[in-house]
Amino acid sequence: MAETALLDIVIVAIDAIATVAFAASGLLEAARKRLDPVGVCIVAGVAAFGGGTLRDILLDQRPLYWVEYSNWLWVLLIACALAMAWMRTQHVEFTRKTMQWPDALGLGLFCATGTQIAYTQGMPAIVCVLMGVITATFGGVLRDIICNEVPTAFKDHRPYVLCAFAGGWTLIAAHELAVAPRFGVPIAAGVAVALRLLSLALDLRLPGWAIRRD
Amino acid sequence: MAETALLDIVIVAIDAIATVAFAASGLLEAARKRLDPVGVCIVAGVAAFGGGTLRDILLDQRPLYWVEYSNWLWVLLIACALAMAWMRTQHVEFTRKTMQWPDALGLGLFCATGTQIAYTQGMPAIVCVLMGVITATFGGVLRDIICNEVPTAFKDHRPYVLCAFAGGWTLIAAHELAVAPRFGVPIAAGVAVALRLLSLALDLRLPGWAIRRD
Amino acid sequence: MAETALLDIVIVAIDAIATVAFAASGLLEAARKRLDPVGVCIVAGVAAFGGGTLRDILLDQRPLYWVEYSNWLWVLLIACALAMAWMRTQHVEFTRKTMQWPDALGLGLFCATGTQIAYTQGMPAIVCVLMGVITATFGGVLRDIICNEVPTAFKDHRPYVLCAFAGGWTLIAAHELAVAPRFGVPIAAGVAVALRLLSLALDLRLPGWAIRRD
Repeated sequence: MAETALLDIVIVAIDAIATVAFAASGLLEAARKRLDPVGVCIVAGVAAFGGGTLRDILLDQRPLYWVEYSNWLWVLLIACALAMAWMRTQHVEFTRKTMQWPDALGLGLFCATGTQIAYTQGMPAIVCVLMGVITATFGGVLRDIICNEVPTAFKDHRPYVLCAFAGGWTLIAAHELAVAPRFGVPIAAGVAVALRLLSLALDLRLPGWAIRRD
Repeated sequence: MAETALLDIVIVAIDAIATVAFAASGLLEAARKRLDPVGVCIVAGVAAFGGGTLRDILLDQRPLYWVEYSNWLWVLLIACALAMAWMRTQHVEFTRKTMQWPDALGLGLFCATGTQIAYTQGMPAIVCVLMGVITATFGGVLRDIICNEVPTAFKDHRPYVLCAFAGGWTLIAAHELAVAPRFGVPIAAGVAVALRLLSLALDLRLPGWAIRRD
Repeated sequence: MAETALLDIVIVAIDAIATVAFAASGLLEAARKRLDPVGVCIVAGVAAFGGGTLRDILLDQRPLYWVEYSNWLWVLLIACALAMAWMRTQHVEFTRKTMQWPDALGLGLFCATGTQIAYTQGMPAIVCVLMGVITATFGGVLRDIICNEVPTAFKDHRPYVLCAFAGGWTLIAAHELAVAPRFGVPIAAGVAVALRLLSLALDLRLPGWAIRRD
């Protein structure tokens, strides 16, 4: 039970950082698309909570994690308000590049906790990894859909979903090797973040397509 | 128990009016985007039932309200068919302005009933209000996403989500003041509708953004 | 019980064919939109499993069918990889027309099994048919939304949703006439597929609209 309690703390802490990271990515994307302040808050919220919410719905897990930790909703609202006030005075120019760092962090952290939560429910390995990938990427996918763009994760030919996929399998491997989850989860998160940052640094690209449009 | 039964009637009645109002908004938007008759019915249905369905899924409440009152599906289908037949003979020109009135009505009514339903489940106040906002706005958000537009509610700089937010908190305040829900729900709905109509009449705008695109 | 077991086999077999058909349609659409290989796999997966997943969520049925038969996820992944490798060497030109056949097949098969699953849960007839329609069409709708297009099913004025609707009612009629579901389900699927292919062959169109844009 002490083990479980410790693991819960690790998961909540990691999820908190990932939530902030994705909220920042949503805020930047919404600002780039010139949404109004309310739209910015909502897109930030969807980017932050969308992936985890979809995972909880698919796994039929209630209460949703942002219902259980509902104070986070206040934190998100206040953080968005402050960020908008600050950005307004600063005339900062945010580019896609600015978003890459928080995004990579959120990606790795969420894929590890999402995989772990499905694992705890006794799901098959492929489903666990898929839940990790969904947790990590669907916040961003929903963010892009709301902003009326084809999700970046599906079209920019950079390894993104693949990094989450690798992170998920790292956690499954750790479980197979009987590594305690309180170590396995951070390791898996680290692998995914490292892979993402490495692929950005090396400018790796997925192979292209040779299909003409009709 | 008589109190509960009475409240149920109030909620069903209010939901019915809001459903019709949002179905009309969906029908008009789909017609503007020149969808085919089947697409018009579906977008009208999504606009009418989408917000409440998402709320029920998030709260894990079954049967969904349109499964419980499934005759409403027939009403919607027949109403859409009649509306399309009528619009075809009339060559009416529908503008965004035409949609504002039914939209404001649906917004206020759904935010009150959505907040109340979450309140009955013992959710924290911020979650109740959020469920009210989701019930009130996500039908329209899904409508806009299907019609391939950035949701109007997030980008037109008019108070819309904010009105639902205020209506939700009005209901929470009414509960705190021990006002009976059968009064509190209509009051909260009225506040939200009034705020929305007032902000349209006064042409209120949310503050803008000073961020350049990259 | 032998009857139920036999019906289960019929449903699983039909669902398998429909899943492959829709995965192919998703793969082709994603390739046409020039998504990267990962995006192609995901859009193929969403097209294949999206409708059934939404049905299971709305009916609150767990485990989701692709969790229960999770080996299918491997089949999908490997099939997508092979298809992409093959398409790359062949420089095939895929048009909307290529997609019509697998799409028609998936449409008919999923509408029959979706209606049957809701029927087994004792839902009202209109809800059963709607669940069949959702199973059959929302994979494609989600595919189009992710690819940032107005769903084809809602705007191309061809009978598509209507064919699924007719197939669903065929199954309800079969139940009323006490036809065994192991016959009724394939018959309903056949009716929907036949209607779709017939309407394509005859180039049938839904009536248009006479509304000007504002």
